[in-house]
Amino acid sequence: MKKLINDPDAVVDEMIEGMCTAHDFRRLEGTTVVVRADAPLEGKVGIVSGGGSGHEPTHAGFIGDGMLDGAAAGEVFTSPTADQISEMIQACDGGEGVFCVIKNYEGDVMNFETAMEMAEMEAETEVESVVVDDDVAVEDSLYTSGRRGVAGTIFVHKVAGAMAHQGGGLSEIKRVAAKANEHVGTMGMALTSCVTPEKGEPTFELSAEEVELGIGIHGEPGTERTDVMSADEIADHLTEAVLEDLDLEGGTEVVTMVNGMGGTPLMELYVVNRRVQEIVGEAGLEVWDERVGDYMTSLDMMGCSITVLELDDELKELLAYPAETPGLTVVE
Amino acid sequence: MKKLINDPDAVVDEMIEGMCTAHDFRRLEGTTVVVRADAPLEGKVGIVSGGGSGHEPTHAGFIGDGMLDGAAAGEVFTSPTADQISEMIQACDGGEGVFCVIKNYEGDVMNFETAMEMAEMEAETEVESVVVDDDVAVEDSLYTSGRRGVAGTIFVHKVAGAMAHQGGGLSEIKRVAAKANEHVGTMGMALTSCVTPEKGEPTFELSAEEVELGIGIHGEPGTERTDVMSADEIADHLTEAVLEDLDLEGGTEVVTMVNGMGGTPLMELYVVNRRVQEIVGEAGLEVWDERVGDYMTSLDMMGCSITVLELDDELKELLAYPAETPGLTVVE
Repeated sequence: MKKLINDPDAVVDEMIEGMCTAHDFRRLEGTTVVVRADAPLEGKVGIVSGGGSGHEPTHAGFIGDGMLDGAAAGEVFTSPTADQISEMIQACDGGEGVFCVIKNYEGDVMNFETAMEMAEMEAETEVESVVVDDDVAVEDSLYTSGRRGVAGTIFVHKVAGAMAHQGGGLSEIKRVAAKANEHVGTMGMALTSCVTPEKGEPTFELSAEEVELGIGIHGEPGTERTDVMSADEIADHLTEAVLEDLDLEGGTEVVTMVNGMGGTPLMELYVVNRRVQEIVGEAGLEVWDERVGDYMTSLDMMGCSITVLELDDELKELLAYPAETPGLTVVE
Repeated sequence: MKKLINDPDAVVDEMIEGMCTAHDFRRLEGTTVVVRADAPLEGKVGIVSGGGSGHEPTHAGFIGDGMLDGAAAGEVFTSPTADQISEMIQACDGGEGVFCVIKNYEGDVMNFETAMEMAEMEAETEVESVVVDDDVAVEDSLYTSGRRGVAGTIFVHKVAGAMAHQGGGLSEIKRVAAKANEHVGTMGMALTSCVTPEKGEPTFELSAEEVELGIGIHGEPGTERTDVMSADEIADHLTEAVLEDLDLEGGTEVVTMVNGMGGTPLMELYVVNRRVQEIVGEAGLEVWDERVGDYMTSLDMMGCSITVLELDDELKELLAYPAETPGLTVVE
């Protein structure tokens, strides 16, 4: 196995150390939870998220003004524990409660639910949450009942974070987060498997002649394996599936995201974006903003996902609200 | 070959199309030159750069307020032509001249020099330039006399761009760009070879048990091949080589950059950054800022480079000056 690591068992711990020196983050002692250095912010609802490691910059990379206050990291591709999530919730409560953005994986949902109950009981923290399930590929999957939560989660972080920074309360935040989740769709694909530090070899076999469409961010099975396709064919397949799911009227404003899975060069993501814009244009949609880059990765997997979010004036305002995080910055 | 591309011959063209829809860029017709949509900016020195494609976000990703006005892209790992560079220079001249940031590769240096003469002759554009040669690994290399220009170039973009936005003239910009270049050092390494779209197979052979230290951003030979090393051993080797070259006194302020080569997960870059900070701390240096991410890549190569820039008050002020680009944002 060739990786820039020391010990597979220490990789999350050491990643968090390297993150906390680089950014204005604070690690909760004895945990793999990272919060903004000045958390909790008095008078603001705390916004938190979390999940398995290996998806960086998700989630800690979105900690900062206008987005998240905290992120709980589990081991690679493993949910963080309820204890740690509860500690995070309590550390981010500035008196107005805490809102949790949860990706729809059984472990995450269960541990966040337990943690929310713990925080309510132990510290009387008011909590609310949204479970993001933007992946249009499959209805149930290896670790999920219903649709998986994938890169569309970044937009939910953004709108929830902006609403909180504008002084919105828990119910307002829940409303806009749920609205974003309801109007976003994503579908991904892989050219190669990722290699986890623990296993040291590909998570699944994919021959040199095949690609997998509809794959999850942990290498969970997708919808089909096909012969290697061109970038345009892949963009067509993914974007059309997302648009079919969203079923938008012509003239609708959208934001698009071409997200890299970690091992794919930015050059290729732009090639994909070129075709995505053509398809979205042909569908009569108005593209208000485009994002291209690595937002939610699967370690070193080669591949991409395509996300489309349907906008209204409120969502546009929240997406345009200033944010300053390592993984995404919006300048006024 | 598994890549998100359509045709190896069209990849640069299609990348630029996908870039120009995503960002506030304008492509000069019939070229692979990208400039900011509102170029030239009257009354400001234009800052431009360029080089082979395959290093994204370098260089076009640094176009925006406070950094570059234009970037000329050659074919993958191939210098842009003098004609195109000259067109870029003329398109970015707002009456105060244009400053070129050139990485030290023979093709780039030759074509930029020819282009600068062409722009002076054809349009009486005043031009100045700096040749960046921050790679401490080897003295001469496959495409270079003297040291190669690598990731430290991003800091030169930043200080030149900030000086230009503050109203600095060509000579002031040249002075600070040269100062940044003089005080920056970088060294890289690869776990794997990159695969170019044209060749479709690894550029060089590197066995599963080996890594290459001191490698260039096109896979040019480095200083040595060794057995697979831990992240800490790699960080030690690279950082120590850079610090030895810079020969800094204790208490000196520096900025560090752990740069990903394109195929390496962000998780691993943070693991490397953790150790870099330990070494820099043990050397008695004061870290003023840390950057971790993909800034100058080699397509899908796995590996990283480590950059250290020695600071003074002027360089700090220029690095902290606001910038808004796809690849690097500095918020006031």
